[in-house]
Amino acid sequence: MASMKTAILIFDGLTALDAIGPYEVLRNVPGWEIEFVAATAGEKRTDSGALGITADRALTEVEGADIVLVPGGAGTRALLADDDVLSWLREVDGGTKWTTSVCTGSLVLGAAGLLEGRRATGHWLYLDPLRAYGADPVGGRFVEDGKIVTAAGVSAGIDMALHLVGREAGPEVAQAVQLAIEYDPQPPYDAGSPAKAPAPIVEAVTAVARSGDEPVGRGS
Amino acid sequence: MASMKTAILIFDGLTALDAIGPYEVLRNVPGWEIEFVAATAGEKRTDSGALGITADRALTEVEGADIVLVPGGAGTRALLADDDVLSWLREVDGGTKWTTSVCTGSLVLGAAGLLEGRRATGHWLYLDPLRAYGADPVGGRFVEDGKIVTAAGVSAGIDMALHLVGREAGPEVAQAVQLAIEYDPQPPYDAGSPAKAPAPIVEAVTAVARSGDEPVGRGS
Repeated sequence: MASMKTAILIFDGLTALDAIGPYEVLRNVPGWEIEFVAATAGEKRTDSGALGITADRALTEVEGADIVLVPGGAGTRALLADDDVLSWLREVDGGTKWTTSVCTGSLVLGAAGLLEGRRATGHWLYLDPLRAYGADPVGGRFVEDGKIVTAAGVSAGIDMALHLVGREAGPEVAQAVQLAIEYDPQPPYDAGSPAKAPAPIVEAVTAVARSGDEPVGRGS
Repeated sequence: MASMKTAILIFDGLTALDAIGPYEVLRNVPGWEIEFVAATAGEKRTDSGALGITADRALTEVEGADIVLVPGGAGTRALLADDDVLSWLREVDGGTKWTTSVCTGSLVLGAAGLLEGRRATGHWLYLDPLRAYGADPVGGRFVEDGKIVTAAGVSAGIDMALHLVGREAGPEVAQAVQLAIEYDPQPPYDAGSPAKAPAPIVEAVTAVARSGDEPVGRGS
């Protein structure tokens, strides 16, 4: 099977699982390489502040990628006006096979101009803002429109990454990866989407998000 | 709700999602703190080599924790004979409310003598070795026996962490966290356990694991 090189963009204030979920899937595919990249190389702190993740290469040193992945998190707000990052995304997108995002990472793809006229998704709390970038926020666990694949909030990147492995390496490899990471989810609650969670929980999480506070579980 | 302090043990060769899945759940609970700790402070590289995660504190600087979590990965092999780490685990366990593991992290708890006479789980490929530590490897997504909670492979830490939040902070908070991280899993395949995956996939993943090669998806 063909080798694929994935560049995962990280930045201060990213949501860790947005990046690490897909990483754990993609890194299990034989011959596929992954690099964590950032505007400047070195440690980036996640949105909680409690976790540091290393970017091994600066964007200026990244010559291209088959897959680019943009995670979300509060730190995306700064990226939406970061011309260096947005220019790099446009440039790398010119050579990718798949340009992808998780959670509010789709807003960054939008700000780079890559979602114009595309169906897309993102975190359920941040779908409407996609319209400002010409995207059609259709929702869904992940959405493939041409070579752009956007995933819903945080944990959805795992599902999206398995989908990408299936598309590129075939369903047998995707199933082997799923088994290797024992991805047989059994959440002890069934509140993972606004359609399934009790209304007061949806209202509380929404209120906290609108206030800009973290962590988002605070409202309940 | 009471504040809880979680210490996540990291080390070279850990499997990133084992640690980051639970982190993303626990960090969304209001007032709960998380620290990444290691034998020595500084960057640890995950099993793929592609990712660096920072340990902010050395074990000698950690005075205690309400929750301790041990992830798995190939790097656990070295930990099984690391007296400093095993002594620290025994010591911190004396003051924890919950002592937990994900994937082959349960072998480390076993080597520390903490699973004697306990029901436990871990990655499906590494359940039998738990017997050497006096544990009863019952399998399951996660297993609570007294204050010891062990989770199955890699992605199972997310489910275990939601369970812990529910136990400590109540189901409403756990549901709010689940909704915040949009944990509404929709895997595109249904091969996440050896009971569900096609037999040739199970055989291939097993063969690769037995050979000691990485990544585990290579066999298919």
